[in-house]
This record gives sequence, structure tokens and C-alpha cells, in this order.
Amino acid sequence: MAIVIFHNKIILFSLFSLLFFTFCSSHIIPKFPSSLIRPEQQLNSGSAKNGLYKTKYFTQILDHFNYNPQSYHKFQQRYLINDTYWGGAKKKAPIFVYTGNEGNIEWFTENTGFMFEKAPYFNALLVFIEHRFYGKSLPFGGNKKVAYANSSTLGYLSSTQALADYATLIIDLKKNLSATESPVVVFGGSYGGMLAAWFRIKYPHVAIGALASSAPILHFMDLVSPYVFSNTVTQDFRSESENCYKVIKGSWKLIEETAKKHGGLELLRKSFRICNNYMDANALEGWLQTAWIYTAMTDYPTPTNFLNPLPAYPVRKMCEAIDRSVTEKHSSSTFDKLYSAANIYYNYSGTSKCFDLNDNSDPHDLGGWQWQACTEMIMPLGSNKESIFPESKWSFNDRSASCKFFYNVLPRPNWITSEFGGHDIELVLKRSSGNIIFFNGLRDPWSGGGVLKNISKTIIAIVAKEGAHHVDLRYSTKEDPKWLKDIRKQEVKIIESWISQYHQDLDTSYSVN
Amino acid sequence: MAIVIFHNKIILFSLFSLLFFTFCSSHIIPKFPSSLIRPEQQLNSGSAKNGLYKTKYFTQILDHFNYNPQSYHKFQQRYLINDTYWGGAKKKAPIFVYTGNEGNIEWFTENTGFMFEKAPYFNALLVFIEHRFYGKSLPFGGNKKVAYANSSTLGYLSSTQALADYATLIIDLKKNLSATESPVVVFGGSYGGMLAAWFRIKYPHVAIGALASSAPILHFMDLVSPYVFSNTVTQDFRSESENCYKVIKGSWKLIEETAKKHGGLELLRKSFRICNNYMDANALEGWLQTAWIYTAMTDYPTPTNFLNPLPAYPVRKMCEAIDRSVTEKHSSSTFDKLYSAANIYYNYSGTSKCFDLNDNSDPHDLGGWQWQACTEMIMPLGSNKESIFPESKWSFNDRSASCKFFYNVLPRPNWITSEFGGHDIELVLKRSSGNIIFFNGLRDPWSGGGVLKNISKTIIAIVAKEGAHHVDLRYSTKEDPKWLKDIRKQEVKIIESWISQYHQDLDTSYSVN
Repeated sequence: MAIVIFHNKIILFSLFSLLFFTFCSSHIIPKFPSSLIRPEQQLNSGSAKNGLYKTKYFTQILDHFNYNPQSYHKFQQRYLINDTYWGGAKKKAPIFVYTGNEGNIEWFTENTGFMFEKAPYFNALLVFIEHRFYGKSLPFGGNKKVAYANSSTLGYLSSTQALADYATLIIDLKKNLSATESPVVVFGGSYGGMLAAWFRIKYPHVAIGALASSAPILHFMDLVSPYVFSNTVTQDFRSESENCYKVIKGSWKLIEETAKKHGGLELLRKSFRICNNYMDANALEGWLQTAWIYTAMTDYPTPTNFLNPLPAYPVRKMCEAIDRSVTEKHSSSTFDKLYSAANIYYNYSGTSKCFDLNDNSDPHDLGGWQWQACTEMIMPLGSNKESIFPESKWSFNDRSASCKFFYNVLPRPNWITSEFGGHDIELVLKRSSGNIIFFNGLRDPWSGGGVLKNISKTIIAIVAKEGAHHVDLRYSTKEDPKWLKDIRKQEVKIIESWISQYHQDLDTSYSVN
Repeated sequence: MAIVIFHNKIILFSLFSLLFFTFCSSHIIPKFPSSLIRPEQQLNSGSAKNGLYKTKYFTQILDHFNYNPQSYHKFQQRYLINDTYWGGAKKKAPIFVYTGNEGNIEWFTENTGFMFEKAPYFNALLVFIEHRFYGKSLPFGGNKKVAYANSSTLGYLSSTQALADYATLIIDLKKNLSATESPVVVFGGSYGGMLAAWFRIKYPHVAIGALASSAPILHFMDLVSPYVFSNTVTQDFRSESENCYKVIKGSWKLIEETAKKHGGLELLRKSFRICNNYMDANALEGWLQTAWIYTAMTDYPTPTNFLNPLPAYPVRKMCEAIDRSVTEKHSSSTFDKLYSAANIYYNYSGTSKCFDLNDNSDPHDLGGWQWQACTEMIMPLGSNKESIFPESKWSFNDRSASCKFFYNVLPRPNWITSEFGGHDIELVLKRSSGNIIFFNGLRDPWSGGGVLKNISKTIIAIVAKEGAHHVDLRYSTKEDPKWLKDIRKQEVKIIESWISQYHQDLDTSYSVN
């Protein structure tokens, strides 16, 4: 994850999950602070126990859509499988497939407890497929340096190829298991949720239904306001306290002014416990924006460890940290308040001594998203006057220029909507698709690009006012609020209806030729 | 169109429409006798008058699915447009699009009178899009030699790329016409019908419905008997007379035995009026098979000039020619009978003096089908004991070997069904698509690979017992039988219901995000 100066702007590509934007007034975009997740933290969820899955590989074709010699190249695509609860091919028991997103598949698998918890009830086989170019699913001999070398190799990283990978792998797997009549339901969250929805739309002969959680399939040009994302983050904090919102909103100017003063940078460094190796005001702003954004995305009702270890309702905790000093005897400085809040995201476990602004590590292997955001995933993001972030207009030209600079590639801004639709989606899907659940939590900044209203009797929008980024897919806990329990029950009931309908259809089927 | 000797088999690639097979016992496949269609014959249909359409070009991207440098190459895609009857964007008047098949687009346009005749009723804009790599829609600078040079360039000739071309062109055209709310209905016959159906299934956000005429979307491996095609040809002739069937069925042995005798080849040459330049028994058999097959495909109830000028009910005419001599005083030889029958296909206008077995011309520019049949269009064909043709088993390995030999390419036999489905299609489409008409005429050898039963209330199979290859799409004539008039009326009514439903949906639409 590189920091690059381009046209006097610092451009940072942020990766999880779908982020790729600049808040241009400060020329900074949030950076995913992945190095701060220690390996033992990544694996402390209930899902990471031994024997949770077996790792397998499938020989996948490089290019499904062309037939030139290069297209015939093969690569090893990784998938994780758990057959503990499967009812088997004879019973036509279902297969639940997670359509992997932009990172290594273990990470998504271990954060999708819903599938593991519901497998026994459905007697379902569980399969988690890794997205090409991520994790260990690397074309070009599994050599990341070659695969990521330039646009000649990276060119094969695209959503349509990924979907065709999933279709090919699933069809082959079912054949090998003699389970061609087992219904497949696909699951995914975030970009994985977009892929799950698109997979159901494009490959209805492979999947009978999709649970697309927090899938911003409408977050594309001409479909959504570029401000909806930052406005949701703003609203998340503002709903906790007006003061909290004002302190954060006012902080950018304060930081910039302080940085210009003699000794100001050192003051900032000390205030925010930044390590000695690197200090920069823009990078600090990015570091803070990251904390606010990812905490808003993962503002879950229970303690979690998805991006970072966090307490329940972390946005509230952050605002409490910022507001606390207002009421306390010795009111601390604004920087102290902000540090306390950021510390909840970066150091909830209390073990970090300083924070490295120059951290380039990428433990979840999310680096390929930068390419996807430079080619087809043109998801407009900006912030307006009311935003908690510095004001910043969305500019396709800026995106184009960055992509030209980084990869010598030009984005195709209309491709996703040409290929998958989006305009008048309710008109289209009510007549040509079915069996999709779109879950969205309204505290999730990505929810503005999601499907928030029912489209038909079988294309259902489940909206949780209090929910965050694909909270429904997480492992359940004893502390889960009733609304979350209810939503999971509703999802189970709907998926059950798809499977039962499929079996009924199968019993009454006939040949058409 | 080359004759190639491969492993001691003569392998001829026949093109229109979807043909690519060997009847192996004679190692011969029919060849499309395109050189026998004189230009003035090609243009004598009512559709070819001046001003029928304007020719336009669209700058199309070479590769929609990848982002390597080569993928960004552009080419000029030709389309024909007629706006005489269009009601315009303000009235949201419909756009009828023909999804071009494996040949130059004028030919298909001029043989799809149905669209021209119904445009005034619907106030429809007519658009006929040429398929990439055919006609004038050639990638690589419009240079056919380069485009067809080898698999590095031909590799971009694929059905998925063609469908993405259509989506991109239609979306852009609607935008330019400010007609984003005009509903699009796609039409196609034969391979063009397959593309129309697949387009509706894969791009429901671009087309509200499809009339897929004689579209053998199920004519793929593991979905259909390889014998269904030749059995239908057999049945077409046998239904006219048992003697006719027996004479043709017995002819292959007779020809082969005659050819072996001293002076036999010369006898055959004279009997069939073969030109002096080239004579070969296998080629002669191919020449005859072509006549029987294409006459069966175009066994229309009125005189036509699609492949060749033909009388009404040409199969009956052929059998009458074969049977006539049985009852006449001076019974002619079997070869005379066969010649009289073949002459109906090759020389109905009576102007040909001799027939050139070595004719390689390709006036409709169908040559690219050979590549498609070597990569993804693996449509199994063979003939069994009862067949009017020599017995011949379908062999995927033979196809593979030929393709390896011709192009150094290996077919991907499961790709089409992986990408577009086919297995249990009725289960799939009834839950995930709508608004498709599948027309098939049962005298058409391709009908065995078509959808012959209704799938849902809006996925309708129209089956004409007496119909041939996409007869419904042809210009009407005064002599059309009632069943054909009724079918066209039914198609108009169904398409009308789609458009009216679309306008209703539009009036009651709402935003989902």
C-alpha cells in the first residue's frame, strides 16, 4: 500500500472494502491500518478453530471469454470446504457458497459465522471460493510479482472473470460430488455481496438464490450521490452527539494550522503517539479518517474483531471519549480528545506503544482492489459542506489521471452498469430475477448504494436501522440484540423457502425439448 | 471455405447456419453452396429496396472482460438503422434490435421482413447489429487477413464478447437518441436467435424481451441426442414418400461403388453436371447432402430466396422429382432422379450450366463460424442407422483433433452451458427470466435443440408442425398459409403485451435506494 505524490496530491489507495477515494480538499484518503491487526487477533474469532475447513485447489482457466493462446493459461484457485453437516448428494442437500471478495479467503470465511452456524440446520455443504488475484489464487504460476507486474497480467483481474470462475468451479465441484441436483445458494458481504447478487442475476442456472449482504451494487456513476457515503459516516457520529461531530469536523483545519507552526508537527506526533520514523500532517489526517470510517462501517452492537478489535457500539464509545472531557473538571485539549477516540479503533487492546503512519503491510492481501478501482469499480465518493470530513468533490477525471499514472490504464466508468444493470433496477429485476436478499444496515456508509426496498415477492430488502457492514453474516453472540436475531431468523426462513421451492420444482419438472 | 484432408478424412466446414459436422462414414459434411447464389438473386427480396436502412458504425472495444493493453483496442462495428416508423424518444416508442449472427448483417436484415412489416404498427425504431468478425465489423483495423490470421486475433471472436458488444452499442445508442426509456426488444433467427435469447437472459436491463426464432440453445453436449438433426432431415423426406427416402439413403453406397469402377467418376460427373475443373466422389456426396439439408431447413410454404431460390415446399418437389420417374414410362436412372432433385436446390432458376464442387466463395461472409465451432459452439451432430445420411457417430475427439489441426486451438465443450445454462432450463428460467418467445418449426432440423414447450406464462414456445428455419421472421406473402399468419399475429400480441407492461411498470416505478 503505497503513498504516492501525484500532481501535488497525496493519493492513498485504501482497500477494505471498496474504498478508493480522495477527500480532495485535504488530498487524503483513509488507509486501511492492517498492520495494526496482529495475527493472533485475526484468529481469535470462534470460527478459526482447527478443522473448520479443508483447503482445496481447482485448476481454473485464465480467460473465460476469449480464445487466444494466453486465454488458455491455467492457475490454481483456492477454495475452503466444510462437509461436516452436509446431507449429501442423494438427499439433494444444499450447497452454500461464499463468493469471495477482495482479500484472502480465510479472512472472509472466519468472519462469516452465519454460514457455519446455519449449516447444521440446512444440512449444507459449505464452500468458500477465493477471488482470483487474491490470497493464494494467483494466476501466472502463483507468482505475485508476475501477476501484479503490470496491466498485461493484472488485466485478467475483473469481476466478470471472477463470476465465471465461480460458475466453472461450482459446476465442476457438483459434478465431482455427483451432486448436480443439490441446490446452490450464494452468500457474500460487501464486494462479495455484490458478486453474490450479480452471480444470481447472471448465473441463475448455477445458484437458486443469493444472500447479498451490504452489497452496494448501486454505488456507481449516475446512480448515487457521491456524498451518500460520507454523509452516513457524518450522521453516525452526529447521532451520538453534536459536539462529537463538531470536534471531528473542526479537527482538519486545526491539524493543518498546527502543522504549519514551528514545532507543530512534533506536537501532533506526540499528541497522537505517532512513531518516530515518519510524520506528516496529511498522513495523520488520513490515519484519523480511516479510524472514523472503518469504525462507522463496523459499528456493531457487540465486541468484534473484524478490522480491528473493537468494543460494542464503537462510534458511541468514540463520541463518549470526545465528549467526556467536556464535562470533566480538567478539560483536555482537542487533540487529546481525538486521540482518545482514535485509540479505540487503533489500540482497543491497549498494546500499541506508537502508531506507524508509514505502514505498508497488507495482511489480508487486499492490494488488488486498487487495480479493480482503476478499471471497473468506479464508485464515486466525495464529501459536501455538512460532512464530518473536509469538503471534496468527486472527480472522475482525477480518478482517471491517478489510474493512468499508477497503471497506465483508463477506467471504464460505464462498464459495470452496462454489464450488470443498475438503472431502474426495480423494473428490471422484478421481471427477470428472483430469490435475492439484500441486507443493509443503515449505520453502514455503504448502505446508500444498496437496495433498500423490496423489488418483488422474492427479491427482498432487509434494512436494519441500527445495523453496520454485513453484521448479519457474523457469528452470533449471546449479546446480540433482538433485531439482529430476528433478521437472521428471517434470512433463514427465506433461504428455506427457496430450497423447498426448488425441490418442489424438481419433482414436477419436465423436458422442454 | 477450404476442403482439407485430415487423418484421411475430407473435412469440410459448412457454415450456414451452425453446421459443422462430419457424417464420418463418408467423411463428408455438407458445404454451403454460396457461390451459386448470384448477387442479383441475393437482392431480389422485397426487403432490399433502396432506403430500407442507413448504415452506421460504432466504435467498439475489443475485449470487454479484461483490462490488459490489447483489450483496449477499438474496432468499427457496423449496424443498420431504419427510423421511418419510430414514434420517438418522447413517446418512449420501442426499439427493435436484431442481434446479428454469423454473416454479413445485410443478408440477415433483408431476410427478416417481419421486423420491417411490424415496425409501423409498433412505431418501432429498427436496428440490425452486425456480429464482430463478420461482414464489415472486423477488429484489427478492419483488415480481414489480420483479424483471421490466427488464434491470437480470432481469439476475440466469441459469443460473450458479441453480447457485450450489443449491450454497449444499444446503451450508447439510446443515450445518444435521448431514448433511455424506450423499451428494447431483441430479435434473432438461428444463431442470432440463440444470441437474442441469451441477451434477454443475461442483459435483462437492456432488453425487455426476445423473439428467439429457431434458436437451438439446447443443441449442446449432454443436452441433446446428436442424431436429432439428421433424424429430422430424414423424417422431412420420408414424410413425403418412402421411396424418396430409400433412393437418397441408398445413393451413398451407389456413388461410392460407381466411383471405384473404371469410368465411374466420369459417369458421375456427367450425371450431376459437375464442371470439368474438379471431381471427387466424397465431394459429390457433400454436394448432395448440402442440398438435402439446406432444403429441409428452408422447406418454406412459399417460393423463397434465402439460401438459394426455391419453390414452395421444396422437399416435396424434390421427392416428386425422385418419385416421378418411378411412375413414368421410361424410368430414369437413380442418378438422374437424384440430379433432378438436387437441381431444385442448385438450379431452380435454370441458369447454371455446370456445378463447381471446388467452389470456395463465401458471399455472406460466414467463414468465422468455423472458428466458433472450434472453440465454444460444440453442437453434436451425427447420424444413426435409420438416417437418410451415411451412418456416423458424433465424436468430440474428432472435433478436437480438427480444431487443433486447423487453428491449434482446443474446444471448451462445457463453456456454453456453464455460461448460459441449458440443463433443467425450464426450472431455471421459470424463476429467473421472462418475456421470451421461442419459435420452432418442426420441419427444421435444428428444432430438436430448441425450446419446444412453454416454460412460464411469459416464456412461450411456439411450435409450427409445418414450419422450417425461422420462417416466422421472413417477409409475409399473399400465399402464406393460415398457420403462419396466426403465428405472426400471436408473436405481435405477445410483444405488445411486453411493451404495454413495461410502460405500466415505468409509470408505477419507485427508487430502491
